[in-house]
Amino acid sequence: MQRYFLQTDSNERVSVKGDDFHHMIRVMRMKEGDSFLSVFQDNKSAICKIEEISNDSLTASVVEWELNSTEMPVRITIVSGLPKGDKLESIIQKGTELGATEFIPFKATRSIVKWDDKKAHKKIERFEKIAKEAAEQSHRRTIPFISEPKTLKQILQTVPSNAVKLVAFEEEAKQGESSQFKEELQKVQNGDHIMMIFGPEGGLTEEEVHELKNHDFISCGLGPRILRTETAPLYALAAISYELELKR
Amino acid sequence: MQRYFLQTDSNERVSVKGDDFHHMIRVMRMKEGDSFLSVFQDNKSAICKIEEISNDSLTASVVEWELNSTEMPVRITIVSGLPKGDKLESIIQKGTELGATEFIPFKATRSIVKWDDKKAHKKIERFEKIAKEAAEQSHRRTIPFISEPKTLKQILQTVPSNAVKLVAFEEEAKQGESSQFKEELQKVQNGDHIMMIFGPEGGLTEEEVHELKNHDFISCGLGPRILRTETAPLYALAAISYELELKR
Repeated sequence: MQRYFLQTDSNERVSVKGDDFHHMIRVMRMKEGDSFLSVFQDNKSAICKIEEISNDSLTASVVEWELNSTEMPVRITIVSGLPKGDKLESIIQKGTELGATEFIPFKATRSIVKWDDKKAHKKIERFEKIAKEAAEQSHRRTIPFISEPKTLKQILQTVPSNAVKLVAFEEEAKQGESSQFKEELQKVQNGDHIMMIFGPEGGLTEEEVHELKNHDFISCGLGPRILRTETAPLYALAAISYELELKR
Repeated sequence: MQRYFLQTDSNERVSVKGDDFHHMIRVMRMKEGDSFLSVFQDNKSAICKIEEISNDSLTASVVEWELNSTEMPVRITIVSGLPKGDKLESIIQKGTELGATEFIPFKATRSIVKWDDKKAHKKIERFEKIAKEAAEQSHRRTIPFISEPKTLKQILQTVPSNAVKLVAFEEEAKQGESSQFKEELQKVQNGDHIMMIFGPEGGLTEEEVHELKNHDFISCGLGPRILRTETAPLYALAAISYELELKR
């Protein structure tokens, strides 16, 4: 069933206009009596039935509220060293499916790509669209937030004080570090906020890792193989889901 | 350091010809005294130093054997319902990074793509190249095997008798099944063989899942979100690595 993120709080009766109306009626050719899934701004979701269609809006009523959450039990901020090409799109699309809460593009020392402000605005709009579509497709209740690109200094200024702070550092993996990530995840409680930083293609510099460690970030290996910059966040998100969402 | 899969068993002295010779000397412009990483057919790997370069071959000697394995402690066969577009390339590239041993493209009921035999041969060659490059990049010692596309019947005829047999079924995830995958992974021993089956875009049919269950495949959910056909195998591989390779 098609899922729509509506711009209103939850209510037994729903009014739909604009893009979502266009998609339902013009693209999906829905008729009165058809059903869709709506996710409201307060993150509640329900199956709704179309009752009346006018020229530019429709009204629907809630048939059944969804009770099982599809959201991670923790907030997860993925900080990605700005990569080349369309890799950030791939991180955002698949990272949304895998449950991330927020993405921060990170102007790392070894990031080759630079965004000017004009370009950044357009790119973020595009990323927001990718995140929305991936959230709908994977049946999520929230759309991840896409931040503007930030420097390390800006990132360090905005770290939530109670966050679980992790940095994926491939040199740790090469040297056989294989316990920190699991150790930290096993201490995580529902409702916690995990912030995890990943380097761009060339990796993080020693200075960046040093600075992060000074700010209490814990350096983790993600297994013995060297993962690409666009694969490492997906490994981390899948592992977090496996640890926290699958029961033993 | 550049990594090469050589077509010989391990030896203190190495002779390199053909494509690898071409890549080292013509592409990478290596000189006598330069070093590279070589992985031998018996899966041993070593840092080697070039001693002599002739017109069409070079000789090198082992400087140091690699001791830490980058291979998963289990064999993992990923069976992927034939997806559309270049998704299988993405599964093979990232699945190789994440440690898979073998990929079997699966002619599922809902697979829209059909391969004729001629096309299959060319595609498999291309996939083998992608797997080789991903294995080199991620510092693996073995290159995953790419099978020809198989029907469900053919797959069931070749399941190793002692394999841990899993099938990712999104209906289980939707209904909140969240314990089988972890339960099975926690029973796995080093050296075991895990075979895991994933549907194409439209998912597996009830009949396919029924047939698999009749052959002792265990149906698992991979968390509460609906994962795309190209994301689910990556979730599974990351979770297997997290469970078996990261220490607690």
